[in-house]
Amino acid sequence: MRSVEIFDSTLRDGAQSAGISFSVEDKLHIARALARLGIPYIEAGNPASNPKDIEFFLRAQKIPELFSRLVAFGSTHRRGNRPQEDPLCQRLLEAGTGCVCIFGKSSKIQASRVLGVSMEENLSMIADTVRFFCSRGRQVFYDAEHFFDGYHDDPAYSLATLRAAREAGAQRLILCDTNGGSFPEDIAAITRKAAGEFGDCIGIHCHDDMGCAVAGSLMAVEAGAVQVQGTFLGYGERCGNANLSAIIPSLQLKRGYPCLPGEQLRRLTKTARYIAGISNFILPPQLPYIGSSAFAHKGGMHIDAVQKYSGSFEHIDPALVGNERDLLLSEQSGRTGLLLKLSAAVPGLQRDSSEAAELVELLKRMEYEGYQFESATASFELLVLRRLGRLQPFYQVELFRSIGEQSDEAHTRPSSATVKVRVGNKTEITADEGDGPVNALDRALRKALEAFYPAVRQMRLTDYKVRVMEPQNATAAKVRVFIESSDGENSWTTVGVSTDIINASFRALTDAVDYKLYCDARK
Amino acid sequence: MRSVEIFDSTLRDGAQSAGISFSVEDKLHIARALARLGIPYIEAGNPASNPKDIEFFLRAQKIPELFSRLVAFGSTHRRGNRPQEDPLCQRLLEAGTGCVCIFGKSSKIQASRVLGVSMEENLSMIADTVRFFCSRGRQVFYDAEHFFDGYHDDPAYSLATLRAAREAGAQRLILCDTNGGSFPEDIAAITRKAAGEFGDCIGIHCHDDMGCAVAGSLMAVEAGAVQVQGTFLGYGERCGNANLSAIIPSLQLKRGYPCLPGEQLRRLTKTARYIAGISNFILPPQLPYIGSSAFAHKGGMHIDAVQKYSGSFEHIDPALVGNERDLLLSEQSGRTGLLLKLSAAVPGLQRDSSEAAELVELLKRMEYEGYQFESATASFELLVLRRLGRLQPFYQVELFRSIGEQSDEAHTRPSSATVKVRVGNKTEITADEGDGPVNALDRALRKALEAFYPAVRQMRLTDYKVRVMEPQNATAAKVRVFIESSDGENSWTTVGVSTDIINASFRALTDAVDYKLYCDARK
Repeated sequence: MRSVEIFDSTLRDGAQSAGISFSVEDKLHIARALARLGIPYIEAGNPASNPKDIEFFLRAQKIPELFSRLVAFGSTHRRGNRPQEDPLCQRLLEAGTGCVCIFGKSSKIQASRVLGVSMEENLSMIADTVRFFCSRGRQVFYDAEHFFDGYHDDPAYSLATLRAAREAGAQRLILCDTNGGSFPEDIAAITRKAAGEFGDCIGIHCHDDMGCAVAGSLMAVEAGAVQVQGTFLGYGERCGNANLSAIIPSLQLKRGYPCLPGEQLRRLTKTARYIAGISNFILPPQLPYIGSSAFAHKGGMHIDAVQKYSGSFEHIDPALVGNERDLLLSEQSGRTGLLLKLSAAVPGLQRDSSEAAELVELLKRMEYEGYQFESATASFELLVLRRLGRLQPFYQVELFRSIGEQSDEAHTRPSSATVKVRVGNKTEITADEGDGPVNALDRALRKALEAFYPAVRQMRLTDYKVRVMEPQNATAAKVRVFIESSDGENSWTTVGVSTDIINASFRALTDAVDYKLYCDARK
Repeated sequence: MRSVEIFDSTLRDGAQSAGISFSVEDKLHIARALARLGIPYIEAGNPASNPKDIEFFLRAQKIPELFSRLVAFGSTHRRGNRPQEDPLCQRLLEAGTGCVCIFGKSSKIQASRVLGVSMEENLSMIADTVRFFCSRGRQVFYDAEHFFDGYHDDPAYSLATLRAAREAGAQRLILCDTNGGSFPEDIAAITRKAAGEFGDCIGIHCHDDMGCAVAGSLMAVEAGAVQVQGTFLGYGERCGNANLSAIIPSLQLKRGYPCLPGEQLRRLTKTARYIAGISNFILPPQLPYIGSSAFAHKGGMHIDAVQKYSGSFEHIDPALVGNERDLLLSEQSGRTGLLLKLSAAVPGLQRDSSEAAELVELLKRMEYEGYQFESATASFELLVLRRLGRLQPFYQVELFRSIGEQSDEAHTRPSSATVKVRVGNKTEITADEGDGPVNALDRALRKALEAFYPAVRQMRLTDYKVRVMEPQNATAAKVRVFIESSDGENSWTTVGVSTDIINASFRALTDAVDYKLYCDARK
């Protein structure tokens, strides 16, 4: 069986999504998650167009197991330049990746109308750029922009651009449906022609403007494509890119193409939730394979049928992708998944013990209230340890109070907070100011605790995210706060949920401190 | 050209979505919107399983122009009964619709394992039920449940169920991919066989568990299907049903099948937004054709290209489906994008005027400070109008103050807020409580303004998002708050940035109110 290469562009094409703005730290987190899952090619940025992307590549160079999978993206050299003099090409080289993805115009109309070059000049730009990067030891993938539209207008010219790239040394020729307007059967037919001429070096890059990007990608593989480009959760400009989390399981489970190594497919759902969390997006529950509703059954008739014969309303076993059946009317929902999570956090825990059963009930109640532990593993661990009596509280909070007082907008004053903590027989009450009530509480809490636990001085908060969970109720809805903390050596994430943003934040803050103290005590 | 019948099941299969609960009133609103758009078949409920659905049909009987399009859904008669004695069939008759959709088992495994009947008995149940409804003057569509899986296991038997329904008088045979697990090319091949045997009476009903429901439906039409069943926005159990708002324009604009009468396709986007509003769901911005990001362009290169040649990144003219191009403002969009956006907001503005140059500088400075206008167009418009002196303030905020006071976590109290506003010579000071300081401020602000502007009562906040921008400083970093508001008719998004989450939220709140007042004043 031919294998299929998965090429993820969440960090490059996905960053074009309205509403996405990745920090360098976010990009490192996401790239690491994709690498852990076993994605072989991770396109991570366009160093010529974005200074943040250069910083990202420089930092990633220090993480060899990650860096070996990274791909930098850039265009053919500019008109009139030679690649060795072109600043864009230089930037791309400096990223230092072993593999680069070069896009060029594979459409006659695009080359003439948008680029304003002759047909010959366009071919030379493609060939020269590909040849330049090959000569510098790079593996080169050629992204044939506007290929399908171009093929429609002038098939010979679009194929000529592929030939130019291939003969110059490109290892993959990626057929791009750039405006997302092609029918999947047309994508399949044209991919078959390209694979017929060029052999096992064709890739596919679809956009979802017709809602067919997943189907187009799957059918291109059947037609001979050996690489699928997309973004892990379908993020991308306009309607998004082909959603790899939907494509990978269909290819691997239903068509037998190995896409991820070993048992990694079972981590698909977990990885998806983690990446959505970093991106500060809610994962749409109805997403294929990985959504929380993907295997949820509501109607009584369906629940009955799925018990009698799971294939009735489940096209695969959800465990294969790390998801689970959810019977919306049943008490059994989620039990297996929770047990799995529990035994990972508490190695000695017996799955059929009464302790495990109690914990499952607790976690289900908390998830129902809006907690989400996929990315906040520190809070999850603390919760389990506390419930099992394996973690005694380091301190009690006896009072916390925040006061924000502003006159008009032009004359703002810092918020202030008061926190009183008890450790044994001693109490400490202190106050501090900050930019907003959460910052004031954070400072006051750590100031109060420093007297007992000097190590909290090493801590700092590195990220703070807020998400509203029932948006129809807006500011009165529940909010979920994620806080990421670091002590320079380790970093960890905690979560708090409440209808009140201050309370939710304070819960995540105390968990963050507790986790630091717990880890230090274990050392 | 063969025409294609559109069959919408938002009110029946769509109601199976987790999180959807339509009232009878909601169902009437949605049915009317679909009828106005020109959808010929509107499946509106299962009167045998749901008392609310009976009430719905009784009320709808009084609206003839709507009722003529309605379809009632139900199953074959129960084992051992005859249809004329079966209470389920009686209920379906009482709905009074001219057309009924009857589902039966078109899979050998389903009939034996789930229904527990013999192969012959299953065929009689299908034929008898169809014959019964035909004899009562109903047009009958047969929904062949589990058809594709059944065909895979035993093609002859699945085809026999279709034959039983057809010979008993069914006017349409709908092939259902009930668990959503079929590849679109397999759907196409099997549909072609069924159309070959039964002619122009085949319909298609896909689910999106592989992310291929739209593609499967489109390819089934090419293979001979004359009816497409789906839900208008893809709502439905698990991963949802085939999304008709994506299917209709592809069929009509790209394949030439007339689906909607006259110019009705231009109302597609408006109808989608209306139905999402009634369903109390936010319309995902990336939905094909109708999403607010479907024709949004972010990167500077893309904005440049789409100006030179719209086909570069737009597969259709957005006006054809009542949507519009959106040039997103971002670091990547550059000066051209800003100018385009400005001239859209302020029609008279000269691109090379000093005013335009000043605005570009202002916007760039604000983006540098962390504002992001790509989704917050209401704040963008207000900013420009204020700067140009074309918008006078509706009110002044003289004071806003929030107090959050909590003892320990177990005993939380609501936050409270005080807001004082001035309009002309009059001031109003008031206070309110809320879940958290932002909610309290929101309530107090609108309460204070109601005295002057009763229209603010129509407003509600529909989404609230917070993003930290320099996570290295965490709770002391700048936060960006987006608030989405709605007055039932329109919705708009505003943004506020500050180091203090309360201040950032308050800015977005006042912009939200200002935009409402500004739009009302323009009417």
